Amino acid sequence: MSLEAELKVDIKLVARKNNENTIIDLENTKVGEGFFTIIAGPCSVENKEIIEETAHFLSELGIKIMRGGVFKPRTSPYSFQGLGKKGLEYLKLAAEKYNLKIITEALDEDTLKLVNECADIIQIGSRNAQNYGLLRKVGKLNKPVLLKRGFMMTIEEFLYSAEYIAFEGNKNIILCERGIRTFETKTRNTLDISAIPVLKKETHLPIIIDPSHAAGRRDIIPDLIKASLAIGAHGIMVEIHPQPEKALSDGKQSMIFKEFEKTIKEIKELADVLKVEIK
Amino acid sequence: MSLEAELKVDIKLVARKNNENTIIDLENTKVGEGFFTIIAGPCSVENKEIIEETAHFLSELGIKIMRGGVFKPRTSPYSFQGLGKKGLEYLKLAAEKYNLKIITEALDEDTLKLVNECADIIQIGSRNAQNYGLLRKVGKLNKPVLLKRGFMMTIEEFLYSAEYIAFEGNKNIILCERGIRTFETKTRNTLDISAIPVLKKETHLPIIIDPSHAAGRRDIIPDLIKASLAIGAHGIMVEIHPQPEKALSDGKQSMIFKEFEKTIKEIKELADVLKVEIK
Amino acid sequence: MSLEAELKVDIKLVARKNNENTIIDLENTKVGEGFFTIIAGPCSVENKEIIEETAHFLSELGIKIMRGGVFKPRTSPYSFQGLGKKGLEYLKLAAEKYNLKIITEALDEDTLKLVNECADIIQIGSRNAQNYGLLRKVGKLNKPVLLKRGFMMTIEEFLYSAEYIAFEGNKNIILCERGIRTFETKTRNTLDISAIPVLKKETHLPIIIDPSHAAGRRDIIPDLIKASLAIGAHGIMVEIHPQPEKALSDGKQSMIFKEFEKTIKEIKELADVLKVEIK
Amino acid sequence: MSLEAELKVDIKLVARKNNENTIIDLENTKVGEGFFTIIAGPCSVENKEIIEETAHFLSELGIKIMRGGVFKPRTSPYSFQGLGKKGLEYLKLAAEKYNLKIITEALDEDTLKLVNECADIIQIGSRNAQNYGLLRKVGKLNKPVLLKRGFMMTIEEFLYSAEYIAFEGNKNIILCERGIRTFETKTRNTLDISAIPVLKKETHLPIIIDPSHAAGRRDIIPDLIKASLAIGAHGIMVEIHPQPEKALSDGKQSMIFKEFEKTIKEIKELADVLKVEIK
Repeated sequence: MSLEAELKVDIKLVARKNNENTIIDLENTKVGEGFFTIIAGPCSVENKEIIEETAHFLSELGIKIMRGGVFKPRTSPYSFQGLGKKGLEYLKLAAEKYNLKIITEALDEDTLKLVNECADIIQIGSRNAQNYGLLRKVGKLNKPVLLKRGFMMTIEEFLYSAEYIAFEGNKNIILCERGIRTFETKTRNTLDISAIPVLKKETHLPIIIDPSHAAGRRDIIPDLIKASLAIGAHGIMVEIHPQPEKALSDGKQSMIFKEFEKTIKEIKELADVLKVEIK
Repeated sequence: MSLEAELKVDIKLVARKNNENTIIDLENTKVGEGFFTIIAGPCSVENKEIIEETAHFLSELGIKIMRGGVFKPRTSPYSFQGLGKKGLEYLKLAAEKYNLKIITEALDEDTLKLVNECADIIQIGSRNAQNYGLLRKVGKLNKPVLLKRGFMMTIEEFLYSAEYIAFEGNKNIILCERGIRTFETKTRNTLDISAIPVLKKETHLPIIIDPSHAAGRRDIIPDLIKASLAIGAHGIMVEIHPQPEKALSDGKQSMIFKEFEKTIKEIKELADVLKVEIK
Repeated sequence: MSLEAELKVDIKLVARKNNENTIIDLENTKVGEGFFTIIAGPCSVENKEIIEETAHFLSELGIKIMRGGVFKPRTSPYSFQGLGKKGLEYLKLAAEKYNLKIITEALDEDTLKLVNECADIIQIGSRNAQNYGLLRKVGKLNKPVLLKRGFMMTIEEFLYSAEYIAFEGNKNIILCERGIRTFETKTRNTLDISAIPVLKKETHLPIIIDPSHAAGRRDIIPDLIKASLAIGAHGIMVEIHPQPEKALSDGKQSMIFKEFEKTIKEIKELADVLKVEIK
Repeated sequence: MSLEAELKVDIKLVARKNNENTIIDLENTKVGEGFFTIIAGPCSVENKEIIEETAHFLSELGIKIMRGGVFKPRTSPYSFQGLGKKGLEYLKLAAEKYNLKIITEALDEDTLKLVNECADIIQIGSRNAQNYGLLRKVGKLNKPVLLKRGFMMTIEEFLYSAEYIAFEGNKNIILCERGIRTFETKTRNTLDISAIPVLKKETHLPIIIDPSHAAGRRDIIPDLIKASLAIGAHGIMVEIHPQPEKALSDGKQSMIFKEFEKTIKEIKELADVLKVEIK
């Protein structure tokens, strides 16, 4: 069917309509309207020390959710593919010690099983945003899902991918805008910030921003974080690393701890004015 | 020459380097670092009454610069092409009455002459952003220029277009991001908000945002205005209309007065926190 | 890792270098340099009769490979998802009767198993072009794979996805250009025909064109087929349907039999001049 | 007005409707349906010798139209801007000696006057494709115009730009597809070859292809020329240079004479099969 014809079928379960805003409750924090929830951590879990150091740092800042990839979808089969199960263990240990929740990406049926056992939020990445088999499988689980927009995906298609998850029963979905592919080269992708107010009109699901993958360069991330807060996003997911220049992946776009801490402090007052609670 | 080779030649006059931030002084207001300057008005000058009504409204709000197109670059030769000289007169009269500055677009040599006689800021539109003949001509004038980014222009090319103007002597240039063309259709264009911090690193020129043309729909413009302020843009240019549903052009994206007023009031507190003066 | 850094790792197994052109041998036909191989059939297998009718038609025309989707990756969970196993049976029966080879899409581990049992070529679709788990799995099989370019994928990323398959051992890969996503709306996607000569310089793998998904409209497909042949593509995959207006999917872009037959006849002479054998 | 609303106004004069195909008659050659007209020459006129050498070469090959830029729209004001009037003289001299027609670009009112005095076809470049003032001016002249598609322009907007020219009286318009801007980087732009059959359905004007600017690399241009012929384009405009590695502009994409000659010979047989006369 042509896309247009196909899309005449309505988005149902994730559509705003008369639905109340979905608030994802994670015990120690929440994601949804009224909150600006911060998720941070390294691109990849590289070793036990870095994860511990990061977890400690986050807990000092009052941040409740740590990200860290252990199964990495890499463009080249020769690139570092992540620590796998070992990485999950490191994440788990650090999270327990510092009372953090964990988000990490699942790539397929096998890794989904492992991630589901360990993580508090299951991430479906951009390249899998239209992997309908995986969406259906995560839809059958009973755990929050963070669904990243594909970098080639319209907002309408994004909502349909969320609908696949909800259709199977799981309505605990957080949407994540992370930049779309355009001709501009000063940034890795083009952050489609207008998608936030558009999505808030069309769905009751929370929607956060990943400024790191959008920008691909750390120097403008503090500015993107402020804009994310001001436009009404429900949170951010940011790559940070104690020594970005030594990171095995995404070093160029990972913030150093000090810069990140400074930004988090700066946005507090902004959040007060906007009547949003930073989580 | 291939673009790559060609672009090895450096951007010079508009480059940040050790230059101080350019502040455009318009007597009754300023544009540049430290300020968030609001420009508003109808897409087109349609008649004397609407312009008077708009000028009155703006002056009540404390806004100092009014926009209004009189020479309209229209995709079709059969569309309303603007009121021309008559429109300039209406603009002038209303501006004088309410002590406003005027910005309006020049399309070519003929209209540039007329616009230069009447306007306080000369606008070069998106479709003319690489019309180097026109850029050179405006570069020879002694009046502030607002240069809109072409909707398919890289940031690098945008800076080169500004360089053309500066090269001829005129360094009073305000850059304006107004959305780029992508595959997304929920908005008219995709606002490239990351361009703001990128440009602030690369040039000393002020840079503002036109959320109206980026969005193409009025309902998300208040959110885009807040994001523009938070990310550090030096201002906004917004289309407003007393009765958008009757507008001869851009009605769908023009804000009604009441909504606009509400937004302007809402951002005051935000500006205070950000230590920016709303102008 | 930033994409740039990541991509410094070379493409190895699928790179042209000193490798001879890969020719995929399917017993009754071949795909590769020197040939222009035609693959045709309905978007979806809808029922036994249509598949039989199509198979008969193709065999009369001397075409050796029939396409037909049974597991459909649909943007909406409410759209027709394909006949599944039943569809595979119909394909198999018709193919045996008319001595045709079959190509059909696998979406995930489960459907890959079923497709592998029945099809002669396994298709990996655009939305799965960076589903690295699936690429690895198909890389472990001993059967030709047709890999479609993602509609927002660079040529470099496309080659890396092929490398994933080759990396696991399976080097029987046919690349398929099917249009990329741009701002143009007169066609469903923009056929990137330049990708053919570019890819022929960079890889030894055969590369064919899917004009149906690129165009999204049947009226220009004959022209795209001629261009595909002239530019040196190794074949085409075309959607045809006995009654496109009644098709359950992609009707708008499916050619009617008569038009398709006419086109196939017209290109014979062209192929002679180009010294290419139509298969 | 929003673009959609604006575009409801019909394309009239250049629309196909019941109009006969426009054939541009240039005395020594023609452009339009039934012909495949070749235009070639250097990107820029650099000196008298190169133009003479090129003219001689073209006349030997039976080619009737020579291109050569003298007023160059350059991204940077510091790049070579063309020889100007001197260049026009060189073009004129060489053309007269070898009985060639000339096409060269006009950038604005001043250069249009000069170009109109000397050239046989006036080129309006990509960056000026929505410079409506210039389109109107060229529309008032009595000379064939080659209108290049902007690299950011939809087919619909392209037709509206042609309509501007026709609206002022000049209907001798040749459209030129030259690639659109996408995310792909292996080529300078993405040749939108589907635009040819689409445009042939929507307008009676001739439409040619500029493979040089589309590709930005000479190695794939022979392939693009063959595809252009096969898809039904009415001609091509190609950059050639006796010593591309020494060219002041576009050297990377300029074909060397020998390669170009080889390609022109190769397409003769193709043209016979397609029943098209090479001009």
